[in-house]
Amino acid sequence: MSSMNLWVTEQEADHIRTGWAVTEVLFSGRSEFQKVDVVETKAYGTMLLLDGLVMITDADEFIYHEMISHIPLCLHSNPKRVVVIGGGDGGTVREILKHKEVEEVILCEIDDMVIEQSKRFFPKVAECLNPGFDPRVKVRVGDGVAFMKELKNEVDIILVDSTDPIGPGEGLFSREFYRNVAGALRKGGLMAAQSESPWFTKDALGRIHRNISGGFQYRKSYVAPIPTYPRGSWSWTLAAQDPIDPARFDAARFSRVEKSLQYLSKDLMTGAFALPKFFAEKIADDHKSN
Amino acid sequence: MSSMNLWVTEQEADHIRTGWAVTEVLFSGRSEFQKVDVVETKAYGTMLLLDGLVMITDADEFIYHEMISHIPLCLHSNPKRVVVIGGGDGGTVREILKHKEVEEVILCEIDDMVIEQSKRFFPKVAECLNPGFDPRVKVRVGDGVAFMKELKNEVDIILVDSTDPIGPGEGLFSREFYRNVAGALRKGGLMAAQSESPWFTKDALGRIHRNISGGFQYRKSYVAPIPTYPRGSWSWTLAAQDPIDPARFDAARFSRVEKSLQYLSKDLMTGAFALPKFFAEKIADDHKSN
Repeated sequence: MSSMNLWVTEQEADHIRTGWAVTEVLFSGRSEFQKVDVVETKAYGTMLLLDGLVMITDADEFIYHEMISHIPLCLHSNPKRVVVIGGGDGGTVREILKHKEVEEVILCEIDDMVIEQSKRFFPKVAECLNPGFDPRVKVRVGDGVAFMKELKNEVDIILVDSTDPIGPGEGLFSREFYRNVAGALRKGGLMAAQSESPWFTKDALGRIHRNISGGFQYRKSYVAPIPTYPRGSWSWTLAAQDPIDPARFDAARFSRVEKSLQYLSKDLMTGAFALPKFFAEKIADDHKSN
Repeated sequence: MSSMNLWVTEQEADHIRTGWAVTEVLFSGRSEFQKVDVVETKAYGTMLLLDGLVMITDADEFIYHEMISHIPLCLHSNPKRVVVIGGGDGGTVREILKHKEVEEVILCEIDDMVIEQSKRFFPKVAECLNPGFDPRVKVRVGDGVAFMKELKNEVDIILVDSTDPIGPGEGLFSREFYRNVAGALRKGGLMAAQSESPWFTKDALGRIHRNISGGFQYRKSYVAPIPTYPRGSWSWTLAAQDPIDPARFDAARFSRVEKSLQYLSKDLMTGAFALPKFFAEKIADDHKSN
């Protein structure tokens, strides 16, 4: 007796499809904000999809989460208060907590269903969001755009761990949002935001980077391969009011977390900033270089 | 009237499929060695497949070809004679020819059908293989394994631009082959070989790297994202009888070709050697470090 040949497929426009064989559909729901699905795949283990797009899988989530967290955490001079916007799966918070210098992490996720289903099906990723796991963690279910308007000069690092600039994530790519992020940061503060695929069009990438520049004097992007994301690679962008020098990361702080990492090496802490020429050229416009 | 909804799909084992919408099948043949197909895709332009696996596409071939050629070309002290094994699409030869120091490039490709169909459908990639395009180019249709046995101490750089270690490419991953490559190189010689995806199993990657170490004292791997290759990233491995220091590339030589490149920047000449930890750990065994 052979079982159903089940695949989940993510499609880019009308021209690229990537499919993963599925052994079981674990959860399928619709929240106030989006469609939430969790499936068990043969290739990458458990996979979370929002509105049909892959967010995380057991097998490769470590790359995204290490990239968005340890690079800014090691570049900041004294990271005590950290805010994560989005990131309801908990992976970014898990990485931040490895830094003992951090005294408080606030996660602001709009969709409680993402948090609850992540706790259920990705315990190793989301257990840090359980009450009592670590007293430094505060989970706030709410709109990150509104939250950023409330904070003034009180946070060291803000990580924008958002979905794509369509649907519930759209406001997290606007110029006004980045201005409010800048206003929420203390002196010396740093933002890191996921900033889409290097293969996005120059128009789409240009819009994101111009909007970031609306709130910050300096920005610097970095990249990593992510096999389950469209076209296999992704970018993040740091932003600050002072020049950003990737080589000046705190090597001692990195050494303390290095053993627990699966993607980032000391060499990659700077190597990730070496950008493909075609990508660097797309995001160079309207850009204060540093 | 709507036209046929045609897709070409590459499948990894029974668990991952990537498909590209096809507007036209341009060529479909079977050579003595393999199935050769050329299709026009919506996402990446013209695509060459061998035995059903994507080899090159118009839109992203530059990454693979820049990576396999300019890194060894700029690390060698005096590259005059260069041999390419495989690489019948011509892209690697095209990149090598940008270096005026090179006096002779010999391409040894086993399958004439790959050369002929590349000239026909990828003129910007393969035109360098046409007689009279550049007097430095010699095209030899034949077995790279046998060719390596003929050469003794007479080549500066050998680039192994092979298919995967199954089918006609298999012999190009054997210990005996790498020993013969080493024997073909002059003092100070350098090999660079495509060495599969960082996501290959530790067993499969370990075998490749142990075999390379059978011919060479030192090896060093580097990586780049390639959207049309399985899981979106790829690796190449340099090998030599002397320690390899990526930072000591010839910056003047790189500057002379830089303007023509779309992927490699000066930063990536060293940044590409910053390896994902999970990959570095897979290939660390039986490895003389340097």
